[in-house]
Amino acid sequence: MNAKIRGVVPPVVTPLLPSGELDVESYERHLNRMIDAGVDGLFVLGSSSEVVFLTDERRRQVLEVAARVIDGRVPLLAGVIDTQTERVIDHIRVAEEIGADAVVATAPFYAIAGMAEVERHFRLLHEATDLPIFAYDIPVCVHVKLPTPMLLQLGKEGVIAGVKDSSGDDVSFRYLAMGNKAMGSPMSILTGHEVVVDGAYMAGADGSVPGLGNVDPAGYVRQWKAYEAGDWETVRVEQDRLAELMRIAMVSKGVVGYGSGVGSFKTALWLLGVFETNQMTPPVLPLEGENVEAIREVLIHTGLLDN
Amino acid sequence: MNAKIRGVVPPVVTPLLPSGELDVESYERHLNRMIDAGVDGLFVLGSSSEVVFLTDERRRQVLEVAARVIDGRVPLLAGVIDTQTERVIDHIRVAEEIGADAVVATAPFYAIAGMAEVERHFRLLHEATDLPIFAYDIPVCVHVKLPTPMLLQLGKEGVIAGVKDSSGDDVSFRYLAMGNKAMGSPMSILTGHEVVVDGAYMAGADGSVPGLGNVDPAGYVRQWKAYEAGDWETVRVEQDRLAELMRIAMVSKGVVGYGSGVGSFKTALWLLGVFETNQMTPPVLPLEGENVEAIREVLIHTGLLDN
Amino acid sequence: MNAKIRGVVPPVVTPLLPSGELDVESYERHLNRMIDAGVDGLFVLGSSSEVVFLTDERRRQVLEVAARVIDGRVPLLAGVIDTQTERVIDHIRVAEEIGADAVVATAPFYAIAGMAEVERHFRLLHEATDLPIFAYDIPVCVHVKLPTPMLLQLGKEGVIAGVKDSSGDDVSFRYLAMGNKAMGSPMSILTGHEVVVDGAYMAGADGSVPGLGNVDPAGYVRQWKAYEAGDWETVRVEQDRLAELMRIAMVSKGVVGYGSGVGSFKTALWLLGVFETNQMTPPVLPLEGENVEAIREVLIHTGLLDN
Amino acid sequence: MNAKIRGVVPPVVTPLLPSGELDVESYERHLNRMIDAGVDGLFVLGSSSEVVFLTDERRRQVLEVAARVIDGRVPLLAGVIDTQTERVIDHIRVAEEIGADAVVATAPFYAIAGMAEVERHFRLLHEATDLPIFAYDIPVCVHVKLPTPMLLQLGKEGVIAGVKDSSGDDVSFRYLAMGNKAMGSPMSILTGHEVVVDGAYMAGADGSVPGLGNVDPAGYVRQWKAYEAGDWETVRVEQDRLAELMRIAMVSKGVVGYGSGVGSFKTALWLLGVFETNQMTPPVLPLEGENVEAIREVLIHTGLLDN
Repeated sequence: MNAKIRGVVPPVVTPLLPSGELDVESYERHLNRMIDAGVDGLFVLGSSSEVVFLTDERRRQVLEVAARVIDGRVPLLAGVIDTQTERVIDHIRVAEEIGADAVVATAPFYAIAGMAEVERHFRLLHEATDLPIFAYDIPVCVHVKLPTPMLLQLGKEGVIAGVKDSSGDDVSFRYLAMGNKAMGSPMSILTGHEVVVDGAYMAGADGSVPGLGNVDPAGYVRQWKAYEAGDWETVRVEQDRLAELMRIAMVSKGVVGYGSGVGSFKTALWLLGVFETNQMTPPVLPLEGENVEAIREVLIHTGLLDN
Repeated sequence: MNAKIRGVVPPVVTPLLPSGELDVESYERHLNRMIDAGVDGLFVLGSSSEVVFLTDERRRQVLEVAARVIDGRVPLLAGVIDTQTERVIDHIRVAEEIGADAVVATAPFYAIAGMAEVERHFRLLHEATDLPIFAYDIPVCVHVKLPTPMLLQLGKEGVIAGVKDSSGDDVSFRYLAMGNKAMGSPMSILTGHEVVVDGAYMAGADGSVPGLGNVDPAGYVRQWKAYEAGDWETVRVEQDRLAELMRIAMVSKGVVGYGSGVGSFKTALWLLGVFETNQMTPPVLPLEGENVEAIREVLIHTGLLDN
Repeated sequence: MNAKIRGVVPPVVTPLLPSGELDVESYERHLNRMIDAGVDGLFVLGSSSEVVFLTDERRRQVLEVAARVIDGRVPLLAGVIDTQTERVIDHIRVAEEIGADAVVATAPFYAIAGMAEVERHFRLLHEATDLPIFAYDIPVCVHVKLPTPMLLQLGKEGVIAGVKDSSGDDVSFRYLAMGNKAMGSPMSILTGHEVVVDGAYMAGADGSVPGLGNVDPAGYVRQWKAYEAGDWETVRVEQDRLAELMRIAMVSKGVVGYGSGVGSFKTALWLLGVFETNQMTPPVLPLEGENVEAIREVLIHTGLLDN
Repeated sequence: MNAKIRGVVPPVVTPLLPSGELDVESYERHLNRMIDAGVDGLFVLGSSSEVVFLTDERRRQVLEVAARVIDGRVPLLAGVIDTQTERVIDHIRVAEEIGADAVVATAPFYAIAGMAEVERHFRLLHEATDLPIFAYDIPVCVHVKLPTPMLLQLGKEGVIAGVKDSSGDDVSFRYLAMGNKAMGSPMSILTGHEVVVDGAYMAGADGSVPGLGNVDPAGYVRQWKAYEAGDWETVRVEQDRLAELMRIAMVSKGVVGYGSGVGSFKTALWLLGVFETNQMTPPVLPLEGENVEAIREVLIHTGLLDN
């Protein structure tokens, strides 16, 4: 992977069997469906994959199967998310072994240190591998926001190859994109803010990493191509439609957090016939009953499912 | 004011004399400069005006002078920001007396009640006046986020005429704009998120209320006209330039909060010859020394000031 | 008031008529009941009084009636809570005029500045008055925590005469009490943390400002006297009983925030025959129905009301 | 371990060699020093041990060495802290194998689910083991607060054997202790709030888990014995001294978070001759230079180190 990563790179949701094992067959179907839809890369073991909720053996398996199925058709970005530098480096070793094209790492989490330590973390990761590293900015999970000046400095020095921004802070995102451009665009700046990807493209994003892209990869691909063609009206209209679809993550009652977020993606994929179940990792239960019906309604309403 | 408010509506910064009195002459110059630049309305006594940091007499004076100077050339929106319903209604009485075209109210603040009480607050305001009411969503100041379903319901019933969204939550903003459109656009949805107004226009905003519009009203007007003309490339390029200009609010050292935010707007207006001083309300001191020079640099760099 | 304020100083809740007017008769009864119970001072226009939710005229009236009724029997501390320095000074003028023994001021609120400005705020207040000033540390309302080193410095210089700590941060409180003691105890350090006053006494508090002291002043007075006598077992047992009583603020359903907090104090005082109603300031409604019954249960259970 | 855990149970800090390996010799010295001081139990692999910053192999080793050294002299509580139920159960298996007397588990972390899922998590842990389970309430790390009613219900049913409360919420702690007592004290309620342990004892705590107990176990043991004897004055005076000692965690400059917290404990133990180094896990660097000297000053000032 010498070229910069651009375009639509969904963070792949992980299908599980009722036993909790990886559902390999569904996983193949899911990966192929996204590649067929024209995605520009796949981010395996991101937050939406329940990465930190899988055992280390399961994490390895998810990556191995993905590498085998993807087979070089699109770049494979591997999440190496863990609490601490050495633990992350252990995951990087697995990613190297399996042949990932890049790795994606967050700041350390659980107890919080300072920004000097976060910067040192990324520098230690870079010293430990030749793989391109994406800094994954996800304060909702790790409870620190990666500061724009730090990211720009790390990008300038080649410590990081890009940023996956799931901060929800569109102002910072713009300054990051502007700063990157001002120094010749060494980094790939990707937004994870799936409901306002159009705004991120306005700000100069190099692409998107939309969790909802698991459900409707074709929609995000159409939006990206319109952006590349300068057709902003299509970018915008497609975004409105995707925002309607994103309501699947909001219609569940009595469930909060990623159980209704990732849970709704799994449920939609199950309803679409891509997954065999909508099984989650314990202690989260799969959505059921009226919540499933509410998601079905959204899929019908937005044209993904026939009535 | 029967027509819906659309376009650029800067929240007017208040010039003060070293004595702390309103600098009437500068204020006239400032208001006229924005009207001459083509703004579509003026929001007096918004957060950027230091509204809650002025005595009630000063608040009245600021509104009176504004009404006299504006003289119907553009709609005058009057902030009626206060901690509690009856106190807000007292401010509404003043706004009515002075002839404001609309009032802008936040949720109550200081001690927090629940959302039922916030909704009741807006309903009581509506019962108390015939003026159109804008709900001002500014959680960073009042520490509650106005929920989108509540705003849509109040808009549907005609309790509020619009929303001034300073929440920084672009996802909620999109759902607000989409929901408003879906019910026939009864409300005027304005964004205060001055660095990413282009994204808000993509989302279907009816206009913007940019604090930075005090400094460069012409830039936001050009952006709005481009949006109206469907010229997205200009919308985007103008936004990038305005984001560069917004660095005036970030370059000060040793000062945090609105002292460097509103303080930078005042300092820029002083450097541009619009204001006589960059005086703030106590306990905040005006920016000085290197901070002023840093702001001057940004103004020169972005073409607002000659070298 | 030359002596340091020590002991139990309830923050007085304000009885209102259904019309929203001050219920003067209930107020007299309420003030006298607390003085008769042996309280060491009364803090009028604190947060529990709904101070910032009253009009300025009502605030003055509340203070005037309190001064008349108290008539020097115990020190009168007057809240001068407002968003900004000059506005606070206006309230100080009223407190001076009415003859308060001390004033109690928070940091500025709504938009946040930095700590240098907060410190300057207290210094400007001190320059403006000869009355002793208590710094009111209430981050839940003003969204800044007053730093212990700053409070100690202001106390050392005589800028503030004491601290009313409603921060809920017992670690900071201990360091504040220890620091004050280490420099000869120039300040009066009072806790507002009504459920764990015993812990604050362990930490060296000079007294307490318990909202719940409106309902059961005698309990807090007994606890204080036990503390003065070194009878820690009584301090602790009394606290457990008061914590049970504090459940009045937790039993309401469907109401959150100060509507169930201050609202429960008013409801208890109404049930106890001290207040005529449990009227709140708009937009908050008085508690009713099952919520009133649940409060009655707690009062009966803790022996304040007969079955 | 049939008896309820009561008394002082320090969360053991982990000594590391400059290579990052466990410093077994220092660890033995450290464990023995605490047992000799009279502690009532040892909590190995708590947050202060850098548990989630160690590889799984290192975690196992830390537990094995601890079990060997402790050798049944006091109860061994093993932290089984991880992001998700199955991962926690894997750690429980290791704790069972090594012979821990109880395990201590937090809520899941990284992405947040709802409270129903947190409760289910603890129930699944209980189904998976016969070991007593302590719920570890540490919102600063896992970003959820365990609700008091849930903890009481789980304790009533025997799902959890106790709570290690590091929430810093002394009001909740009191209601937890009161609720536990009201149902016959099935649980052991321990506070981790090391600066205000006296307040927790007033509230009815069964003991403490003070990180600072690594540095001065004898002090916390004296305080506990005084509490057991009803000698509240000693409880209080000892706490003041320990609060002075806790300043080691506050005197470092240029370092924030656990680098200055846990880092100061390691540095103090190094200065006291218990540890060979003050090595931390990457990316955190050990304290050095003036920060070490500042910690030495506090140790001298509080009598732990000779001048």
